[in-house]
This record gives sequence, C-alpha cells and structure tokens, in this order.
Amino acid sequence: MNCEFCELCVRPNSREIWHDDMLYVIDASNHELPGYVRVVLNRHVKEMTDLTDDEKRHVMDVVFFIESTMRSYLKPEKVNLAEFGNMTPHLHWHIIARFADDAYFPEAIWAGKVRTPNLASLSRHHEDAEKFLKDLPNLLSQHFAS
Amino acid sequence: MNCEFCELCVRPNSREIWHDDMLYVIDASNHELPGYVRVVLNRHVKEMTDLTDDEKRHVMDVVFFIESTMRSYLKPEKVNLAEFGNMTPHLHWHIIARFADDAYFPEAIWAGKVRTPNLASLSRHHEDAEKFLKDLPNLLSQHFAS
Repeated sequence: MNCEFCELCVRPNSREIWHDDMLYVIDASNHELPGYVRVVLNRHVKEMTDLTDDEKRHVMDVVFFIESTMRSYLKPEKVNLAEFGNMTPHLHWHIIARFADDAYFPEAIWAGKVRTPNLASLSRHHEDAEKFLKDLPNLLSQHFAS
Repeated sequence: MNCEFCELCVRPNSREIWHDDMLYVIDASNHELPGYVRVVLNRHVKEMTDLTDDEKRHVMDVVFFIESTMRSYLKPEKVNLAEFGNMTPHLHWHIIARFADDAYFPEAIWAGKVRTPNLASLSRHHEDAEKFLKDLPNLLSQHFAS
C-alpha cells in the first residue's frame, strides 16, 4: 500500500543513490553531518516486525553493509543506527557516521548541538564522505547482485 | 574484552530481566516511558559490524522478538529502535514503545519534551507495560530455547 501523503512513498527521491526490489538508499548528509545515509523501504510499511523474516534480514544486511563501508571510508568514532518513523511512519533506517568533534557528539543528533565543529576536521570528513557516497552504489550492487 | 570503566560490563545489572550466552535484557522504562527495554551484548563490543553474521542475526532476532511482543502488549503508535553508544561504546539497542500522547512524541526521546503526558493515559500504558515486562522473560526463554 502506498499512501497519498507520505513523502517517502514519492519516487524517485531526489537524493536517491541506489535501490533494489525492496528498498532504496538516500544520501542524507548535510553540512554538519557528512556520512549520513538512510535506507528506506520501497513500499509503505510501518514497523520492522511487519516484514517477513527474509525481508527483515535483507533490510538489516543492507544497513550493516553500509555501516561496514562507512567505517572503512570515514573511520568514525561510532556509527549510529536508528529506526523511528514517528513523523513519517514509512520504514526507514538512519545510518550516521559520528565523530568525537561533531556538532552533537556524544549526544544523539536529535538532541541539541553541543559545539561548533572544527572546520578543518569537518572538511576532511566531507572529503571522505564524498568518496564513500561515490563508491557506495557500485559496492552495494556488487555485494547484493542477485 | 571487558573494560574496567564500562557500566554495561558490570553484571548483574540491577534491572536485568533476562540473559543468554550472548546478551542481556534490561527494563529501561521510567515514569514517562513505560515499555522501554534495552538489549545489551554480554561482551564489550562497539559496533554491530564487529559481530559475526550469526551474532548479528541473534541480536536482531531478540530485538525484533521484543518489538513484536511490545506491540502485542502495549499497542504503541510506533516502536523506536536505536543503537548509538556514543557515551557508552558497549553495544546496546534501545527498544521504545512510543505513544501519540507521550512526553516526546513525535520527536525522538533524545530531543526535548513537547508536552506533559495525560496521566490517565500514561497510567494505562504503565499497566500494560507491567504485564509486558512480567511475561517477557518467559516468552524470550520459550522462543530462544536452545
């Protein structure tokens, strides 16, 4: 079921970088958060436990593949994973590279900012994130080739 | 590896309600958030992608079993899942029953409160959460019996 007013049901998404039969991947990075990706289900489903076991496994395999690739390219202090959907109840995962000197660390990015990030450091993270986002679609295609 | 100063390495945790060979489950609920559970890895590991595929699968199977049981007992508007670990880099999942009239909805619980919850409604959620938390250990044991 697709819903008329759900922004995540609208395709193609302008920031979409990859998709398969079940899900699509968005570059969700911004100035303060380089290396921020979302994995969104193609169809309008609310909860992970609305999926079959095979579907759950595929979604998490993609999430963990992105986490692994993100770690390799960006060397973050921590990767944050979240599936909320309170505002947009269309299943999507946030995968966020967190750095000890980022604007929110060690708080969740949904909390307030705790500092102005160091621009030199932020610039390096953006360079790494650019490579990561450039290569990620091909790496996903290679890994999840059917 | 266990680390000397990690609070999640200290066992038994006073709010532990279940454990197996890989992980333990904590009742993390509080006055404003009934139906809040954490799944914590027994050993000190930082990221999901530090685990083997079998370990990842078991952790997520437990997380999703708890989500499913939570939905059945509490009928939340949405379940929120998160794995951050910025402050305590010892792998743990937050599983949170969210209600349209809770103190933070539709924001993440890591953002500021947006309302004072209705006490009658909150009281009903606490009653459901009490039953959920009472039954959850047995349900986990039955489901994950080896």
